[in-house]
Parts: sequence; structure tokens; C-alpha cells
Amino acid sequence: MTTLSPTLELACELIRRASVTPLDEGCQALMRERLAACGFAVEPMRIEEVENFWARRGGEGPVLCFAGHTDVVPTGPLDAWQHPPFAAFVDAEGMLRGRGAADMKGSLAAMIVAVERFVADHPRHTGAIAFLITSDEEGPALHGTKAVVERLSARNERLDWCIVGEPSSTSQVGDIVKNGRRGSLNGRLRVKGVQGHVAYPHLAKNPIHLAAPALAELAGEHWDAGNAFFPPTSFQISNIHSGTGTTNVIPGELTCLFNFRFSTESTVEGLQQRVEAILDRHGLDWQIDWSLSGLPFLTEPGALLDAVSASIKAVTGRDTSPSTTGGTSDGRFIATLGTQVVELGPVNATIHQVNERVLASDLDLLTEIYYQTLVRLLAA
Amino acid sequence: MTTLSPTLELACELIRRASVTPLDEGCQALMRERLAACGFAVEPMRIEEVENFWARRGGEGPVLCFAGHTDVVPTGPLDAWQHPPFAAFVDAEGMLRGRGAADMKGSLAAMIVAVERFVADHPRHTGAIAFLITSDEEGPALHGTKAVVERLSARNERLDWCIVGEPSSTSQVGDIVKNGRRGSLNGRLRVKGVQGHVAYPHLAKNPIHLAAPALAELAGEHWDAGNAFFPPTSFQISNIHSGTGTTNVIPGELTCLFNFRFSTESTVEGLQQRVEAILDRHGLDWQIDWSLSGLPFLTEPGALLDAVSASIKAVTGRDTSPSTTGGTSDGRFIATLGTQVVELGPVNATIHQVNERVLASDLDLLTEIYYQTLVRLLAA
Repeated sequence: MTTLSPTLELACELIRRASVTPLDEGCQALMRERLAACGFAVEPMRIEEVENFWARRGGEGPVLCFAGHTDVVPTGPLDAWQHPPFAAFVDAEGMLRGRGAADMKGSLAAMIVAVERFVADHPRHTGAIAFLITSDEEGPALHGTKAVVERLSARNERLDWCIVGEPSSTSQVGDIVKNGRRGSLNGRLRVKGVQGHVAYPHLAKNPIHLAAPALAELAGEHWDAGNAFFPPTSFQISNIHSGTGTTNVIPGELTCLFNFRFSTESTVEGLQQRVEAILDRHGLDWQIDWSLSGLPFLTEPGALLDAVSASIKAVTGRDTSPSTTGGTSDGRFIATLGTQVVELGPVNATIHQVNERVLASDLDLLTEIYYQTLVRLLAA
Repeated sequence: MTTLSPTLELACELIRRASVTPLDEGCQALMRERLAACGFAVEPMRIEEVENFWARRGGEGPVLCFAGHTDVVPTGPLDAWQHPPFAAFVDAEGMLRGRGAADMKGSLAAMIVAVERFVADHPRHTGAIAFLITSDEEGPALHGTKAVVERLSARNERLDWCIVGEPSSTSQVGDIVKNGRRGSLNGRLRVKGVQGHVAYPHLAKNPIHLAAPALAELAGEHWDAGNAFFPPTSFQISNIHSGTGTTNVIPGELTCLFNFRFSTESTVEGLQQRVEAILDRHGLDWQIDWSLSGLPFLTEPGALLDAVSASIKAVTGRDTSPSTTGGTSDGRFIATLGTQVVELGPVNATIHQVNERVLASDLDLLTEIYYQTLVRLLAA
């Protein structure tokens, strides 16, 4: 059997710990041990049932933080997997297989190995290196990065740059980095009518009929044009329900769930006002429960993005594309500290699916990219 | 205790038989016995699990048929009833109480007693008197009147006039008779989209967004203006469902149930074509399962309506109003024989509700109205 690289060895050890969210199963203890061994001050931060830790090495000056999560999404039906999901190994095609290989134990291993090498090569680096690791990114995400960031903020912990290990790449490692994320705003809309019999519609008010023109207008609305960094804000109704199943009753209420993914060209308040104005203009008796999943954040070109892009170019020959598309990530919480945040990890083609896997050699490239970024930002 | 009139005695006997649809519980046996005793040829017509009978007395000439059902709707929660629903009695306010008092055991009793008196007074009446009684009007209505009418039609049974005992009155007995009913046409619409993640709407097609403008147009459409006998055709969406409950998934399909109540100004085919044209114009990928509940029917002024109206006027002093509003009834099946059909029964305020009741004296008035109608149409 071929000897695995240090990154792949560590990735396999992490994958074999079946840390289905919010479990950690000893992944963080392993990481803490390795970091402590190369001079990090390690601070476990268990919050409620969630394992987190903060680790820091260095003194004054700018801080580069690596952030990530040890929890993985559930496996789904085991018989749909070609191999047991937690039996990590590199297959004949050179793919590292297992739940978490891409999201994101491969990245965690690459971070640790890159930092170990960097610290060995540059024991007197400038500034500081930090780790912010949680086991609740795939779950409710309440007692994970969000809560740790609140503690760090309360004690004025400095955090200039952050690389989140989310699998940002789409076909080759480093082809895409995320330099921001759209905001996400949910609404639960209820439109009231008056229940009645379909044979006597004049005695009822059909909330489906009343709401349809307003929903058509909301679906067709142009919210903003986006900007250089963000695509236009999008609005999607994900659920609509009204009626009891019987064909002869006009229902009394209609319920919709909808979601905005919004750019920095729109604000939460502005979107709320515009939705509510449309509903009012259609004369609806409506109620909305709003819930904000995350504000948009953006890391404009600067020291971090430059260092990451140059490292990707040097290691892979690729010109990376910064992007703000896709879902939300824990980067939204870290960005609230005023930190420049970039997400950089392996190819995301199989994340959250059965037979999750990643090209093993990509994790070695990723290790080298993280290493060179450390050199560019913190080498003395 | 006051002695009850013959109609109220019989009504109580029928109510005490707990004939929740499709049960009959001996109601028809009681009616058949009474009719046989005054010279009717009685023909039980059990079809599948449904008790029906046809009875006829007389010879050549026009036939006046009384039609109705012995089944009642379920009681609902028993503790919501002030009195046991099948303990028929007349209360201190003069109300006959019990499930079926208004819909329609009171009418059945009035028909039997009126016919008994008429036959006694006019043993050599012209034409014939008939009864068409089912125990499946409140249920699927497949093996009841519809099936009996098919058998009568197959043997060319003559049926000129029909009085259905449905509770047509709204505030005082005889204030309203139904001289027709709108048609009822159901559709189950499915609109296909393409499922996806709300963060990537360009990879999905949201069927809620696609359908909303079409549904708005259907809800606002003017189908016809009705006519002297029918209100305008109405369209109601009774159910709309799309989405899995999660907020971040664009659903792949939307389902609607809708219903037309349509006048004789519209046809089934015409309505179907107009709906389908609207869906096509909006470019939808749609499918509709159509199901016709009943064609509209109309009894224009003539011998039956004249006799009924004159009898109501003579008995109550009221000018009755013919109406075609409301739900469907078994009249739709009988009208297919070319029969003039009128629905005339007691006040419908409490039908299908808990504490169903009817003014006891109204049933005696109804008996007299039925009697006088028999006299006007069939007295020698």
C-alpha cells in the first residue's frame, strides 16, 4: 500500500471519527494536540452541547485565522454508499472517500499540516496564527461559530484575516474562492380570507384568489441589479399551502414561505418594506414572520485576497475567480468582526451526497496553497 | 304530552333510525309498508351496499314522483349536541330536533302523509304517483338516485314531474323552491417546474412563480353573465400546495384543486378550453384531471312550478321564489329523464350542523303543500 501524505493521513483519521452534527467524536482533541505541539495556546470552548475551540500562536500584529467545522452531515441510507462512509481510504482512482472528505475534514487536515510546516520553517513569524473550529456548522449553528465570535468580540480579540475551509472549488482546486456571501432573509406569509362553501363564493373570501396577483407581482419584481461583487438579489417562494383537501370548501387562509438571497445593494429593511407595500397595494389581510439568516458580507480585493490568489496561481497555475454566489456559511459570523474573510477549500461536487469524495492530490495542493498564503502574509 | 300530528309521528320514527350514510336502518321498510298499504306497487332496488326503492300507484297519464333520501350526514362530536341526535322529539319551542329533522326525514314524512291523505280523498286520481327513495345522497351518490334513474330510463319509465324533498326554504317554509341547479366541474391542476436550491434559482424553475400569474388570471376571469335563471358561472380554487416545508428548496411541482359552478350559459367543453388556453398562454407545463360532478339543469315555469307555487301561496300566503343557487342535489340525475324537477322542503338553517332542528308546524304546512300540489296535478 502506498504511503499517504501527512495531510491525507490526518484527513483519514478525522473522517474515521463519525462526527455527525453536532458530534465532534474527538476530532478537535486530535487537532488541539497537534496545534499545542507546535506552540499554540489552545482554548476549548464547549457551548451547550457543541464542541468548539480557539487556538492562537504568535504575538502582536495581524492575525490570520483558519476556520472550519468538524461536524459532518448525516450519511443518508447506508446501502446507497459504495463503501462504508466512515472507512476513509484513497481508492484506485486517487479519490479520498468518506463523509467529510470534501466538507470539510480534508481542509482541516490541510490547515493543520500547512501550519505545522510553516511554524517549523518560520518559527518567528510576524503577527499571529489562529484556529476557530466548531462542531455545529451543519446543524442549527447557534452554539458554534456565532457564539465563539461573540466571546472573541467581547474580549476584543483581533482577527484581521480569515480563511474558511469550505469547499469553494467547482471543478479544480482553487478555481473559485468565495470572497463574500449574499444575505439570506426568510419570511412566512399568511394571507387571511373568509372560509366558505364553493357554491356560495359571495359569502367567502378566497385567500388563494386574493393572493395570486400579489404573488405574481412579487415573483416578477426586480429587487436590485447586484453589483461588481454580487449577483442581483433573488426572491423565491419555496412553499405555498392553502385548503383542506376537500374540493367544495373555500379555505380561510393561505401560507407561503419565501426567501431572499440579497446583495449589498439591498437592505433587510428595504426588502421588508417593498414586500409589505406590494401586499398592501393588493389590499390583502396579511401577516409576515420575518427571520434573518445572515447579512451579506464582502471581502474586497486586499491583502488576504491577493495572498490567496497569488498562492493558488503559484501552486496550480490557475487564475482564481472570487465569487459571492451560493449558500451561506459561517463566514457571515466572522465577518461581523470586521475581518477579511475568504472561503477556500476543495471541489464541492459531492458534498452532502452519498459517496462523498475528493481528489486526494487536491488536498496536498490545498496544503501548499495554505502554506504559501501563510508565507505571504506572516513570514518574517 | 301533546299528541303529535301524523307527519311528526312518522318523522320521529324515521329520525330514531340512525341511518348515517349510506345506512338506511329500516327507514325505507317503514315507508314501503305505508305506501303498500295505500295501493302502491313497491319495488326495492338494493344496488351494491345502498338501499333504494321505487314505488308507483296509478295508471296511464302524467306521473308525479316524490324523491328523497333516508341517509343522514354523521353527527359530528356528540358532546356538542344539546340532546342525543337520534332521540327525536318536539321541544318546548316547538322545534322537532334530531339528525335528519330538516335533511330530510321531515320531508319524507310529509310526503307519505300527504300521499296517504290524497289517495284516501282521491282514490281514482289521474296519472300516477311515484316515490324514488335512496340511502346514498349524502355519500358518494353512485349507487343511489343515479343508478336507479339509469334503471328507470332503461325500461322507459315515465316521469313527468318530480318534487325532491331537499330543504330548500331559507327562513320560512316555502319561501324558496329550487327549480334548477348549476353544474359542477372539478379540476386537479398540476404545474411542473424544476426543483433546485433557492440559492441557485437560475438552475431551477419555480412552479409557484410560474403559476401565480395564470392563477391570478383564472381568479379574475369573467366566465359568463348567467341568465334569468342562473347566477354567473363561478370559479374557485379550493386547494393549492407546493413545497416540502424546507425553506431552501425550490419545489418541482405545484398542485391546485378548483371547481366551477356553472350556468346553462357555459358548457363543460367551453370552460375546459378556456382554462387550458390561459395556462398555455402563460407557457406552463401543466396537466389537468377533469371530473364532472353534474350538468346544470333547469325547470322552467310550467305545470309543476305553477302547482307548487299556487299550493305554497294557498297554504302559507307566501309568494315563493324559484332559485338555482346552492350546491348540487339528486335532482341533477332525475332531470336527465326530461323530468320537470322542483326541490321543496323545510328551512335549511341547521342542516349538516349539530343540533339540527326544524319548526314542527312547518312539517304540517309542508304536508299540506304537498297534498295541494297532488290535488292540482292529479285530482280526477
